[in-house]
Amino acid sequence: MKLVSFEINTALGKVRRIGVPIDGDETGRIADLTGCYTAYLATGTDEPTPRQIANVRCPPDMIGWLKGAHKSREAAEQASTWIAEQLKDDDDPEGIDGERLVFPRDEVKLLAPVPRPGAFRDFSIYQTHMSKADVPFPKTEQWYVTPPYYKGNCDTITGAEDPVPFPYYTERLDLEFELGIIIGKKGSNLTFEEAKDHIAGYTILIDPSCRDGYKREPFGPNKRKDFCTPMGPCLVTADGINERDIDCRIVVDGETWWEGNTGEPRSFWAEHLVAYVSDNETIFPGDIIGTGTIGMGCSMDIHKWPQIGQQMTFTMDGIGSMTLEIVKGADRVRHVDGMAGLLEYPGEDI
Amino acid sequence: MKLVSFEINTALGKVRRIGVPIDGDETGRIADLTGCYTAYLATGTDEPTPRQIANVRCPPDMIGWLKGAHKSREAAEQASTWIAEQLKDDDDPEGIDGERLVFPRDEVKLLAPVPRPGAFRDFSIYQTHMSKADVPFPKTEQWYVTPPYYKGNCDTITGAEDPVPFPYYTERLDLEFELGIIIGKKGSNLTFEEAKDHIAGYTILIDPSCRDGYKREPFGPNKRKDFCTPMGPCLVTADGINERDIDCRIVVDGETWWEGNTGEPRSFWAEHLVAYVSDNETIFPGDIIGTGTIGMGCSMDIHKWPQIGQQMTFTMDGIGSMTLEIVKGADRVRHVDGMAGLLEYPGEDI
Repeated sequence: MKLVSFEINTALGKVRRIGVPIDGDETGRIADLTGCYTAYLATGTDEPTPRQIANVRCPPDMIGWLKGAHKSREAAEQASTWIAEQLKDDDDPEGIDGERLVFPRDEVKLLAPVPRPGAFRDFSIYQTHMSKADVPFPKTEQWYVTPPYYKGNCDTITGAEDPVPFPYYTERLDLEFELGIIIGKKGSNLTFEEAKDHIAGYTILIDPSCRDGYKREPFGPNKRKDFCTPMGPCLVTADGINERDIDCRIVVDGETWWEGNTGEPRSFWAEHLVAYVSDNETIFPGDIIGTGTIGMGCSMDIHKWPQIGQQMTFTMDGIGSMTLEIVKGADRVRHVDGMAGLLEYPGEDI
Repeated sequence: MKLVSFEINTALGKVRRIGVPIDGDETGRIADLTGCYTAYLATGTDEPTPRQIANVRCPPDMIGWLKGAHKSREAAEQASTWIAEQLKDDDDPEGIDGERLVFPRDEVKLLAPVPRPGAFRDFSIYQTHMSKADVPFPKTEQWYVTPPYYKGNCDTITGAEDPVPFPYYTERLDLEFELGIIIGKKGSNLTFEEAKDHIAGYTILIDPSCRDGYKREPFGPNKRKDFCTPMGPCLVTADGINERDIDCRIVVDGETWWEGNTGEPRSFWAEHLVAYVSDNETIFPGDIIGTGTIGMGCSMDIHKWPQIGQQMTFTMDGIGSMTLEIVKGADRVRHVDGMAGLLEYPGEDI
């Protein structure tokens, strides 16, 4: 099953909701999940308080929905089946108080499936990633047994319709193409088998990276990545896709830059990554874990570089497509170029 | 002014609140801020809906209080003055519905001032930090103009009364002694002057670090640090302390391990760090920014190492003290020791 987070303009301002792409993918109509489940309960069951129950089982935010686990999943299936049935007789069915339930694609804006996760960690598990790069990333013996990752910025996650800023402080912007694992259930110190049950689903994750400024950041990427992380267009539930075999492609202004598959040589499966993160830490519903660049799906390996004004389309079969426009980033302040500090460099490293 | 986050046992379970240490520091009584402000409004003003207004101006969570900026600060001052006045005549004044307003220290548990920030970044700005260490951290020319930092785990932040786990995967646990900057106001692309106005206050920040396993984590610290970050005992507002001159000390089981001051040679002031983070990113109320180890306030420099069972007391004059017990960490799974992956190491790095 696929779910989206979306924004809709109303007479009372923009409102965020979750929905189901009822025409099969993110290019078609979006059904409002909370409204549909409310209407299903009111008309198809003996539920005395349908709106209240719908706000628990299918609340309008993705993390709330994820927390409901199997109960929320069952509710979403019922709502989805119900609205499909209604649409056979009525193009624009109404909710229990006359609200709209189905929106044409151009009336909504798709957001990242989890617009603001509590945590975002991004691994690097593909063996050929960076193998053609001019910045080394050696796959050491350690890499094969403990997958490396960095922690990303949860406050700059964007969706399928948002542009990607090209920061003033880079000359080489690289949009790494990755699979995002979406956590469904809280857990700590999980075995691999247990970890499987904590994966709610998957999404496309794009990791824009500045391929310069490494010396500035000896403790892992910050300014190099933290300005933007697009995710979308939808969440596909874990039973709806095989994360080990997803065909992927990058097309830029009509030209194919790269094609690959999530099954390319990789050190671990999704459940290993989830279990690893959970060791002496806790994972929560909505947390995002990236796989790292799939194969050679980034500029460092294919030697083609995004430019301002380009439209980059990232497609994963079974998940969907996102077309991202590259735009000029903010440059009001230029601290990343260097700030006058309190100490003088003494002429040698100490 | 000082504020704390605390937990209190009630007949309806544990409840989290914010409060004021009315005896001057964290060792004395704690006044419940929301309750006191409600009572102040009800008895000292003509406010018709005191509880509702108190829940906006002095809500029971620190991030909510921070969002109220100068208005919430003014309310907290009024509540604080009001309760001090009441306590002259009455040891145990009541709130407007008979609720308790003042709690003896041993009836509450202090939490981190911001128990769950939205973001936690930790810099390294002190020149002598790691100068006596056996793991190199050279202060390069770059270090003097762009302060390095890593992003921490917001889900394992603990308070002044929580133990620090000693993870199974380290032989060298090091509790780095740092100052935590607490953001008060949302902002992006800030100048240094603007950044000052975005600092709500300061707290003690302890950064437990495993001083081994570096090879496992080429993209910055994860398992080495993410199991625990104690903060506390209180938030001191920015006008209540000079972050450039705070005396600090570490005492372990009665023995002084280190003494220093936040004014030791450092590359930047707090506002520089805030401005730097805000460049092409957004900071939010409750976000935490650490300075990194103050001077040589960590085991790597002083060559004394925490052991399970020890009590470590970290004191900053003007903020307070935290005594942290070192305990054995979880070891249900041992993924960090290495996992059997999908690929064999080919005998050389590729």
